[in-house]
Amino acid sequence: MSEALKGNMLIGQSGGPTMVINASLVGAIEEALRHPEIGRVYGAVNGMEGILAENLLDLTHEDRSIWEKIKVTPSTALGSCRLKVKDKHLERVLDVFRAHAIRYFFYIGGNDSMHTAHQVLQVAEAEGWEMRVMGIPKTIDNDLAEVDHCPGYGSAARFVITATKCIDKDNQALHPVQFIEAMGRDTGWIAAASRAAREDPEQDAPHLIYVPERPFDEDCFIEEVKEVYARLGRVLGVVSEGLRRPDGTQVTASTKVDAFGHAQLGGMGQYLVNLVEERLDLKARWDKLGTMQRSFAYCMSESDLAESYEVGRLAAWHATRGVTGKMLTLLREPGDEYLCTFGLTDLENVAEQTRYLDEKYVCQDRPDIDESFLDYVEPLALGRRITIGPEFITLARLKCYPVEKKLPEYKP
Amino acid sequence: MSEALKGNMLIGQSGGPTMVINASLVGAIEEALRHPEIGRVYGAVNGMEGILAENLLDLTHEDRSIWEKIKVTPSTALGSCRLKVKDKHLERVLDVFRAHAIRYFFYIGGNDSMHTAHQVLQVAEAEGWEMRVMGIPKTIDNDLAEVDHCPGYGSAARFVITATKCIDKDNQALHPVQFIEAMGRDTGWIAAASRAAREDPEQDAPHLIYVPERPFDEDCFIEEVKEVYARLGRVLGVVSEGLRRPDGTQVTASTKVDAFGHAQLGGMGQYLVNLVEERLDLKARWDKLGTMQRSFAYCMSESDLAESYEVGRLAAWHATRGVTGKMLTLLREPGDEYLCTFGLTDLENVAEQTRYLDEKYVCQDRPDIDESFLDYVEPLALGRRITIGPEFITLARLKCYPVEKKLPEYKP
Repeated sequence: MSEALKGNMLIGQSGGPTMVINASLVGAIEEALRHPEIGRVYGAVNGMEGILAENLLDLTHEDRSIWEKIKVTPSTALGSCRLKVKDKHLERVLDVFRAHAIRYFFYIGGNDSMHTAHQVLQVAEAEGWEMRVMGIPKTIDNDLAEVDHCPGYGSAARFVITATKCIDKDNQALHPVQFIEAMGRDTGWIAAASRAAREDPEQDAPHLIYVPERPFDEDCFIEEVKEVYARLGRVLGVVSEGLRRPDGTQVTASTKVDAFGHAQLGGMGQYLVNLVEERLDLKARWDKLGTMQRSFAYCMSESDLAESYEVGRLAAWHATRGVTGKMLTLLREPGDEYLCTFGLTDLENVAEQTRYLDEKYVCQDRPDIDESFLDYVEPLALGRRITIGPEFITLARLKCYPVEKKLPEYKP
Repeated sequence: MSEALKGNMLIGQSGGPTMVINASLVGAIEEALRHPEIGRVYGAVNGMEGILAENLLDLTHEDRSIWEKIKVTPSTALGSCRLKVKDKHLERVLDVFRAHAIRYFFYIGGNDSMHTAHQVLQVAEAEGWEMRVMGIPKTIDNDLAEVDHCPGYGSAARFVITATKCIDKDNQALHPVQFIEAMGRDTGWIAAASRAAREDPEQDAPHLIYVPERPFDEDCFIEEVKEVYARLGRVLGVVSEGLRRPDGTQVTASTKVDAFGHAQLGGMGQYLVNLVEERLDLKARWDKLGTMQRSFAYCMSESDLAESYEVGRLAAWHATRGVTGKMLTLLREPGDEYLCTFGLTDLENVAEQTRYLDEKYVCQDRPDIDESFLDYVEPLALGRRITIGPEFITLARLKCYPVEKKLPEYKP
């Protein structure tokens, strides 16, 4: 073990929020507070954007009782960003680190954020600023390399399963052709979770599941809808935001243009509705899970919440013991009982990689997800035990104590 | 009180489902089972469609323990329909009633369904078939005449409030311009419920609420979005499915046509996104509450569930005491404590009427709902106390015992 590195800590959240990304934040903060070598605990407002603007919060000032509430509050308590960090930004990042004696930097995010963390570490090393940089994984997309699953995915999966079961009941009432659009532009993990909503294979939705990993053909699609409609008198399908044609090109939601020549907007659900209404004599409708699938707090998964806290906590723990340049990984032990363990991988192994839905889970002969996927997804999506009372949901927020700025204003 | 009328009972569900429409079904059935003059209790599969097709279920055969589960299962256990009943259908309806000795008919639905029930009663009277016909109100739209509120609305309102609060957290992360599309083509009751999500008037969503009762002007809209964005750096608005221009004409989701000359599809949320992206240099996104707002069972309202059961039960109770041609009404007693009482009104008073959002609730100077609306909506939307465990949501279904057909097949 290295000698204790004394300095302050900075943590940021990046990319699309999840229901449990704050649990990782709280895990890292609570662990850091146990280590005397870590002085102040700062939060970056809107991730890298806040670091560049020297827009930091002193989290050490927050009332300690806030953290248990923030832990179960969806989305990012610090705000997030989608900034693509470029070389020109890195000198400024280091200036901010030096000005505020940041020796511990934790970045919670997906593959782009891991790339950013890696860039930051490289510039610090090149300039001789000793520090520990750790990546904390999160993404509802579940597409990070080197892990069994990603923090955030289990809760999104739980929302998708719950929504599919409830919408299926609605679909049975008026029996239309209907599609649920789930997130996932490149991978089908989220849409695939809907498979766990189907209890009775003869009747229950989803009757069709379209994911980017399985080539999409319009003519086949029309036949598939016709077959289900003929059998059940109704159709409830689930579709990812992104689909690909057999030649590998992305299906755009529509090839149509409006009167001004702009490509017509509208999601993949709308696109399938258009296809059905144009080519079959049937009315169709669609639902969009939208940002609810990453924020609807009644659907938090128990393991997702616990594991998200733990990857945050372990990032801080490892850093105080000299580890740097790594991302926490979530692994699954073989065996019948679900058991998650936590490893480490180099940030570079994750940066800008995409993990697709395993081939074995994608049915080849029909637009469906194989039953074996249930063993994968169900333990991740079991619920957190909560009692809902009469009142409306309460979501916490930080008081926010800004850190005094020490640098000239940043002009990119 | 009239002499007891002996015969069988038939109940049907019609129009868009709600989270609690089955509670009304169960209320009517459980009350009917207490009255010896009511013989068999039949359910019409898909409302009027099932009656015309003589497609009935014998609900007396169902295991009695199923009803407490069906009561809290969203959507229609019997299926629903949107059939516009015409004079030519009515003779067949009466044939089915005669063939199955139906003396009690209960129809759960909105204003169209009340019209249908009234037509049925008129033809029965004209043909001398003694029977009791009662309407049981339901609609998430909350737009039936003669009531303070409608069964189904409170739970939809609760979903809207919960979703708005959760989506607001998500909106704070990446601060886009964002719109939530709620149901309601003609009235703004559902979108207005989102007002109860705003705790902190300075920061919390909804920042803008667009309802059909307030004329919509594109130029004003753009200014309103700009103002909120300048102040908060983000925008989260709520919009009804339908809006009207100052001249009273319906705003169609788009005036654009696609390459084939078809009107472009897409909801009001997409329409606002298009306006923002075309006229301001801002990216925008939208969420669609879709069928979730009437089926997402974790958001059932306590009073909505209890009152929906009660209007079903009272319909059967009144019918056994000789009442016919009436719909149950839900009234609110004056006073600080919320107290709902149940009256009766003639079916004709409700048929094809629409009750708009009261003028006093619609702000004139800005796209918003007045604070006084909170006293109206909050008691309706308080939650049913439930504990969510690890398992996925379980939704009940009937076993379904078909009634033997006695008539020749119906050829409309």
